[in-house]
Amino acid sequence: MTDQSTDSQIFTCTFHPGGQSVRVEAGTSLSDAIAAAGQQMNLPCGGQGRCGRCKVIIESGEVQRRAVSRLSSTELEQGYALACQSHVQSDVTVFVPPQEEMIVRRMPSEKQTGKVIELPIECDWTIQQDLRQLHLLIEPPSLMDNTNDFDRLKRTLSQQHGVRDLWIDLPTLRILASILRSADWDVTAVLEMRTWVDGGPPRLLEVLPGDQTAAPLYAVAVDIGTTSNVVYLVDMKSGKVVDTAIEYNRQISCGEDIISRIVYAKREGGLEHLQRLVVQTINNLIEEVCDRQGIKPASIHRMTVAGNTTMIHLFLALWPEPIRREPYIPTVNHPLPAMGRELGLHINPQASVDCLPGIGSYVGADITAGVLSSKMFATDKLTLFIDVGTNGEIVLGNNDWLISCACSAGPAFEGSGVHSGMRATMGAIEEVWINTSTYEPTYRTIGDVPPQGICGSGIISLLAEMFVTGVMDKAGKIKQDLDTPRIRKGEHGMEYVVAWKEETRGKKNDIVITEVDIANLLRAKAAIYAGFSVLVRSVGLQLADVEQVLIGGAFGQYIDVEKAIHIGLLPDMPWDRFHFLGNTSALGAYTALLCPDLRQEVVEIARRMTYLELSADNTFYDEFTKALFLPHTDMSSFPAVARILEGRHP
Amino acid sequence: MTDQSTDSQIFTCTFHPGGQSVRVEAGTSLSDAIAAAGQQMNLPCGGQGRCGRCKVIIESGEVQRRAVSRLSSTELEQGYALACQSHVQSDVTVFVPPQEEMIVRRMPSEKQTGKVIELPIECDWTIQQDLRQLHLLIEPPSLMDNTNDFDRLKRTLSQQHGVRDLWIDLPTLRILASILRSADWDVTAVLEMRTWVDGGPPRLLEVLPGDQTAAPLYAVAVDIGTTSNVVYLVDMKSGKVVDTAIEYNRQISCGEDIISRIVYAKREGGLEHLQRLVVQTINNLIEEVCDRQGIKPASIHRMTVAGNTTMIHLFLALWPEPIRREPYIPTVNHPLPAMGRELGLHINPQASVDCLPGIGSYVGADITAGVLSSKMFATDKLTLFIDVGTNGEIVLGNNDWLISCACSAGPAFEGSGVHSGMRATMGAIEEVWINTSTYEPTYRTIGDVPPQGICGSGIISLLAEMFVTGVMDKAGKIKQDLDTPRIRKGEHGMEYVVAWKEETRGKKNDIVITEVDIANLLRAKAAIYAGFSVLVRSVGLQLADVEQVLIGGAFGQYIDVEKAIHIGLLPDMPWDRFHFLGNTSALGAYTALLCPDLRQEVVEIARRMTYLELSADNTFYDEFTKALFLPHTDMSSFPAVARILEGRHP
Repeated sequence: MTDQSTDSQIFTCTFHPGGQSVRVEAGTSLSDAIAAAGQQMNLPCGGQGRCGRCKVIIESGEVQRRAVSRLSSTELEQGYALACQSHVQSDVTVFVPPQEEMIVRRMPSEKQTGKVIELPIECDWTIQQDLRQLHLLIEPPSLMDNTNDFDRLKRTLSQQHGVRDLWIDLPTLRILASILRSADWDVTAVLEMRTWVDGGPPRLLEVLPGDQTAAPLYAVAVDIGTTSNVVYLVDMKSGKVVDTAIEYNRQISCGEDIISRIVYAKREGGLEHLQRLVVQTINNLIEEVCDRQGIKPASIHRMTVAGNTTMIHLFLALWPEPIRREPYIPTVNHPLPAMGRELGLHINPQASVDCLPGIGSYVGADITAGVLSSKMFATDKLTLFIDVGTNGEIVLGNNDWLISCACSAGPAFEGSGVHSGMRATMGAIEEVWINTSTYEPTYRTIGDVPPQGICGSGIISLLAEMFVTGVMDKAGKIKQDLDTPRIRKGEHGMEYVVAWKEETRGKKNDIVITEVDIANLLRAKAAIYAGFSVLVRSVGLQLADVEQVLIGGAFGQYIDVEKAIHIGLLPDMPWDRFHFLGNTSALGAYTALLCPDLRQEVVEIARRMTYLELSADNTFYDEFTKALFLPHTDMSSFPAVARILEGRHP
Repeated sequence: MTDQSTDSQIFTCTFHPGGQSVRVEAGTSLSDAIAAAGQQMNLPCGGQGRCGRCKVIIESGEVQRRAVSRLSSTELEQGYALACQSHVQSDVTVFVPPQEEMIVRRMPSEKQTGKVIELPIECDWTIQQDLRQLHLLIEPPSLMDNTNDFDRLKRTLSQQHGVRDLWIDLPTLRILASILRSADWDVTAVLEMRTWVDGGPPRLLEVLPGDQTAAPLYAVAVDIGTTSNVVYLVDMKSGKVVDTAIEYNRQISCGEDIISRIVYAKREGGLEHLQRLVVQTINNLIEEVCDRQGIKPASIHRMTVAGNTTMIHLFLALWPEPIRREPYIPTVNHPLPAMGRELGLHINPQASVDCLPGIGSYVGADITAGVLSSKMFATDKLTLFIDVGTNGEIVLGNNDWLISCACSAGPAFEGSGVHSGMRATMGAIEEVWINTSTYEPTYRTIGDVPPQGICGSGIISLLAEMFVTGVMDKAGKIKQDLDTPRIRKGEHGMEYVVAWKEETRGKKNDIVITEVDIANLLRAKAAIYAGFSVLVRSVGLQLADVEQVLIGGAFGQYIDVEKAIHIGLLPDMPWDRFHFLGNTSALGAYTALLCPDLRQEVVEIARRMTYLELSADNTFYDEFTKALFLPHTDMSSFPAVARILEGRHP
C-alpha cells in the first residue's frame, strides 16, 4: 500500500566555502537547495539554464544534469554544473563560487541632490500644489455642541480653510478620536486635494498634533528599472530633490531580463515573491534617504512611479504572462492609484502610489516619463528619443506627434549573454583602446582595480576598436591572419583576449570576446538601428531629417557617441545633435510628482503616442539584416565612419 | 543585579470539571487564565467585578480577591470567588460552573423568510437597482488591436452597455488578465453603479466567466445588536429575504452592555478582539444562511449594517472611549463605506459595507433604520417610537419633524443586574401570575422546561403582578405582613420567591426577586418613562396627544402592553394605539439595502432628526423622580391602572 511517489528520499547538501548544509528531497534543484541554506545565488535568466551564471562545482555526490549549455568541456571536466539545472540524487558537497558584488555607482543620481530640477515647461507647481498641511483650531465638543469628531473636523476645515468635503480612509478614522483629544483639538491635517478619482473629494492622509505647517512635506519619485531602482526624496514645498539613492532591483536574483522575470512569475508564489523583492528594494532605498535626512518614512505622503510595463506589473503583482505572449497585452497601461499600505511600502500608509501611464507591453511609463522630462513633447524640432537599457525603446516626434517602438535588443549591452560580460560594477572594463600595429589593448576599469569582465560601455568601445583597427571585419569575424597572441581559437570559435588571466582579479580566466559574443551584440545593435530606421520611414522621413537625438536611460550616460556610431548602434550624424539626459525615467517621475499639470501632461503624452509593432512591420527584417554589419551594409549612411576606414587603409 | 520585577513566578492553574491546566505568571486574573486554558467564560460586565456572573469555586491554592461584591456570605464560605477579580498567588485548582447556554429563539427573523417585505413608501427598487450583472462579449486582442485588458473591458462596457467609466480595485485588477483569457473573452461583469463617493464612477466588483446574468445577485442586511446579531440574506433581483439567521453577539463574553464593552476595549488589544468577535459572529451567520441556500459567500456583493453607535464603532474598530465620557462624542455618525476585505468579512472581498447613519453616541443607526422601517418619517400622525433593548431610545415626530433622546435604562430588562435574571433563553421564566389570596405564583418558561431564572418579559410580568396583587407597594417595597412563605428576609433585604429550588433546573437555588432588584428595575423604567415625558413636553405637547406608539427592538416583541402599563413603563393609553414592529433595525437595514432612494431617505432622517440630551435637561430629574413609583406619582396619568387598583380594594 506504499505510494512510491510520496516515499521520497531525503539527502544532505553541504556547500563550500561556507560549510552550510541543508536536507532536501531527492530531485530538488541545487539552486533551490542553496537558497534553502540561506545563501545568495543569482539566477540572471530565471533558472532556465540559459545564462550560465549559476555555475557551481560538484565536489562529491551525484546530481542529474538537465542542461549543460554555457559550460565548456574543460568546465565539465572540472566538475562544473549549472545549479538551476542540477537535481540532487544523493548526499552532495558543492562548491559555490562567490557571487557578483552588487555595487552601483552613485554618480547619476547624486548630481541631482539638493536642487530644484528644471521643469520641462513653465509651470507654477507651488500654486497647484496638491498636498496641503492645514492647521486647525477645533472647537472642543460639549453637551450643547455634540457633533461627532469627523463632522467637527469637516466643519472646521470648511470654516477655516474653505475645504468643503472630505474623504477619510478607515485606518485614519480609527485614530482620529484619540489624536484630536491628545492634541487638545489643535491639529494639522495633511490633505491630498485632488484625488485621481475625477470629481472625488479631498482625502485626509494624516492628522498630526499641533501646528506642523512649518514642517517639510515629503514625497518620493521612484524609477523601477529592470536592473536598478532609483528613489528621489522630494521636499514638496521647496521642490528640491533632498536626497537620492540607487540600488540593484532585488528581483535580479530571479532573472536578469524582463522575460526571465515573467517566466519566474509562473512559479507557485513566484509573482508574490517578485512583488516583495521590488518593494523590499524600494523600502530599503527609502530607509536609506530617510536615515540620512533624519526623517520618518511615514512623513512621505505621495509616491510617483515610473518603470517599464513589466516592472509596473510586478510592482503591483499583476499577472505578467500575457506581456510576453503574442499579441503582448498588459493588464493595464495606466493603473489607478493604490495606497502605500496596499503594497507593503514603508511610507505613510494612506499615501497615494501613482504609477505613470505606459502605452503598451514594451513601451512603458519609463518612456512616457522620459518623453516628459526630455521636453521632446514640447519642442517643434524633429526629435529621436532613445532609451537603451535592458531593452531598447525609441520615440520619434515633437510637440505635434509622437510615435514609438520597442526593440527586443536583449540585455547584451548590459553585459549579459556575453562570455566575459558583467554589469557596470567595480572591476568592469568600461573603455578599451587597441594599438593599430601590435593589436595590444589598453583598458580602464571601474574603480581602477584589476579587471573582472567587460560591461556595456566597454563592449561598445571594444567592438569599435576591433573594427576600426581591423582586428575584425565588417561581418564581425575576427581575422585569423594577424600576428598577435591575442587572437586565438577557443571553445566557442575565434576569440580576442582583452586581459590575460594574470592581470585579472581572480587570476583564473582570460577575459575574452568571442565571435559568438560578437554575433549576439551585432543582433542587438541591428535591432536598435533597424528600429529607428523603420520608425523614421514609417512617417515618410529620413534619419537625416532628425534634428536632435536624446539619449535617456541609466546606461545611455556611459555610451561614447563616436564609438557607438563606429559600430552602427547610433546613426552617423554630427555629434552636437546628440544629448545625454541621464535617468529620464526618474526625472519624469519627479516632474509628474511635483506638478499636477505635468502629471496630466504625461497622461496626454501616453494618449497621443502611437505604437509601431516592429514584429508586424514587413520592412523590419530587411532593415535588421542590413544592420547586421559593421557599421551597416549601406556605407553611404555612415560617411564619417567611411572616412575613418579610408584613413586606415590609405 | 537581579531585577525583582522581571523575576516573576509561574504557577499552574487547573480547572474542573474539564481538568484543563495552564501555567501563568503570578498576579494573572483567573478569568484570563481560564481563557488561556481555552475555556469559555462570560464576563457580562467586562471584567469589572460588578455583575457577579463569573463566579468560580477555589478548590485549593491561594488567590488575591480584589472585589467580592455580588457574592453572599454563604457563597464566600463555600469558597466562591469572582474570576475577574481573583489573581493567582500559588498553584490553584478551580471549579468553573457551566456557563449560560447561548440559544436564541428564532421566531422574530424566521417569519420574514421567503417574502418581499413591504417597503415603507412606494419605491421602484427594480429600476433603481444599483448592483448590475452585465454580460460582455469582448473582442480578443491582436497585434493590430493591442489595447490593454482594462481599457478593452471599459471599451466593451461602453459599447455594449453604455457604461462610460469604471473604477477597479487592485485585487480585481490582479486577476483580470487571467479570467478574461480562461473565459475566452466571454464574461459577466458585476458592477456597483452608484458608489457612495458622490460623482465617482461605477465600480467593478467581480468578473465571472461566461454569461451569468441569469444567476441570483445576493446582498445581506445586518443588524448588530448589543445582545443579538441578525443577518437577512436578500436576493437583489426578486427583493425577497431568502433566509435569515440570528445569534448572540460573541462580544457578550467581554461585557453584556455597551459600557462594559467600551471598558473592555481599553485593554491591550481589546478593541481588535471585540472587532474580531463581532465579525466572527456575522461571518458565522452568513455561513449558516449560505450553507442552507447552497450559495458561496463570495456571491454576496453588498452589506448594509444597522446597529447602535457603539456597535458600529466596535464593528469598524473605531476607538469607543469618548462615547461613554461626557460630552459623549462618537468618532463618526455616518461612516464612509468600507470593503468586505478591509473588515475580514467572508463576503465578496470588494463588496461595499455600508453602515447606516446614526445621529449621536446614544441614538444610532439602529434607530434611524427603525424610523425608516416603521414608516413614522412618512406619516402625519404624531408618533412615539420606542426601542427598548440593552438601552432605551425614543423618537417622537412625524413626516414633518423628528426629535429623539436616549435613556440610560441599562440592561435590567434584559435580565442583567437582577439577582435571578437571565437572557431570554431556554428555561427563562417569561410570564408570571400571582394568586390574589394565596400569593402563590404560576409561571411559564421558554421551552416549557424547569426554570433557571427570569428574563425581561418575565420581570415586567412579575412586577406588575406583585404590584396589582399587593405583594409590593407603590414604592416597590415588599409587604412584610402577608401570610406566605414566599416573602422572606434574605441576604439582600426582603425578597419574593418565584420558584423553590426543588422546581428549578439546577435544584440548587431558589429563584427570587429582591427589593434591591426592584429598585434597579424601577430606576430603569423611570428613566424610560421620564424620557418620553420630557421629549413630549419639550415640543409643547402632552403624552395624550400621541396618536400611535410604535415599539421596535427584539425585546419589544415580548412585552405585554397591559403589564408594562401597570408598572408605568409604557404610558396609559388605549391598547390599540400600540403597535409591535419586531426588529425594526434589521428591517430598516433591509429596506436601505434594497432601494437606493430609501437608503437616501435614512440619511435624510438622520439629517433632520434632532437630539435632546436628557442629562442636560433640567426637567428630566424631576420627571425621573416622579416615575420611580408604581405606576407613577401622578395617578391621573394612569386612569386605567387606577381603576384596577380600586377594583382590588373595593
